[in-house]
Amino acid sequence: MRLSELSRRSGMSTATIKFYLREGLLHPGRRITTTQADYDEEHLRRLQLIRALIQVGGISVADARAVLAAVDDASLDQVSRMGTAVAALPQALPAPAQDDAEAVTADLVAREVQERLGWRVVPENPAHQALVSAVSALLRLGYPCDGEALLPYGELAERLAGHELALIDKFAAPTTQLEAAVALTVLYEPVLLSLRRLAHAEQATRRLREDALPREDAPRASD
Amino acid sequence: MRLSELSRRSGMSTATIKFYLREGLLHPGRRITTTQADYDEEHLRRLQLIRALIQVGGISVADARAVLAAVDDASLDQVSRMGTAVAALPQALPAPAQDDAEAVTADLVAREVQERLGWRVVPENPAHQALVSAVSALLRLGYPCDGEALLPYGELAERLAGHELALIDKFAAPTTQLEAAVALTVLYEPVLLSLRRLAHAEQATRRLREDALPREDAPRASD
Repeated sequence: MRLSELSRRSGMSTATIKFYLREGLLHPGRRITTTQADYDEEHLRRLQLIRALIQVGGISVADARAVLAAVDDASLDQVSRMGTAVAALPQALPAPAQDDAEAVTADLVAREVQERLGWRVVPENPAHQALVSAVSALLRLGYPCDGEALLPYGELAERLAGHELALIDKFAAPTTQLEAAVALTVLYEPVLLSLRRLAHAEQATRRLREDALPREDAPRASD
Repeated sequence: MRLSELSRRSGMSTATIKFYLREGLLHPGRRITTTQADYDEEHLRRLQLIRALIQVGGISVADARAVLAAVDDASLDQVSRMGTAVAALPQALPAPAQDDAEAVTADLVAREVQERLGWRVVPENPAHQALVSAVSALLRLGYPCDGEALLPYGELAERLAGHELALIDKFAAPTTQLEAAVALTVLYEPVLLSLRRLAHAEQATRRLREDALPREDAPRASD
């Protein structure tokens, strides 16, 4: 298809598509004249992934380039490609700035929860460092946070990942699976966070309304 | 305590503390001379919350001011204060920009999952709008996303919220509970997201290594 059709079908302006071509995020089309090129379904799919990363995920062009380079890197096996692509996605939190007592404790806590779940600990995974940062912050602010406190989060994360990998299995080719893994990692983060906030609102409303009723001797449900 | 001690105990510079005083995020201390003021444990706790919001959560000073104003608003009951404070926290995604077919479907999907979980639907909750945005994005990119697909996320969010509200219950006074609710909402988001990515890395590695073994006729585990 021509650039105009690619624009129409992707819902992106030709100027935006040309920008992604110039930035090396979208592979060039097959040149048919000196001024025209031909694009296919793979270009359309790639544009959708770029949109997921940049327009929805709020990821910078440079970070998106690193993620897509990992997806495309045929010199790596699929485990490494998926690992590299997902690791190139920006984290909610940077690695811990200070190497203080809390950061040391946080690293032990992060290792403990993963070991209790039977996961291999990979300290150089940026997500491990993000977890250490988050736990350090909680500890510095005086909120209790040990392996026990994190265990329910780890168990839920494990169930989610199982559910999501089953979804990704439905996509056929290895490259499409890699693309889906990257897109779903980014796109389901806001789904998860917004549902958590809605669940909080629902339960807080329920509990505080119950508290307002005159039955102070009633036993509290606890999780 | 004097400003210097507040600085030492909070680990924040006096310049930073003065900035938060000027911006109205931190209540003024009790004035003891024309140049000196006295601060107490409440100031220390408030500084920790400000740090959670701004330095860890990456929230703007203006957004933090709105969150703290809701926490402090004695004219509201506690349900409204908690709801207003958490709603003032920035969302992962803004409200859907386009009012297209996908946004309409996404709104139905977001309502369906909440109704199936027995939650009250509050369309004006910013988290509801963030959910609609996230689902619209998934639909526009061609990823399947209906009430059924979101149900596991909603169920996990419900369990998390129950666990987290039980944590918050341990904080004594209503204002401290509100502060804890705000801080934990912000601080546990990166915990959750980084654990999800670690679970993905773990399971992807496990599965792809299993795939590399020569047993193509083995049945696939599905969730």
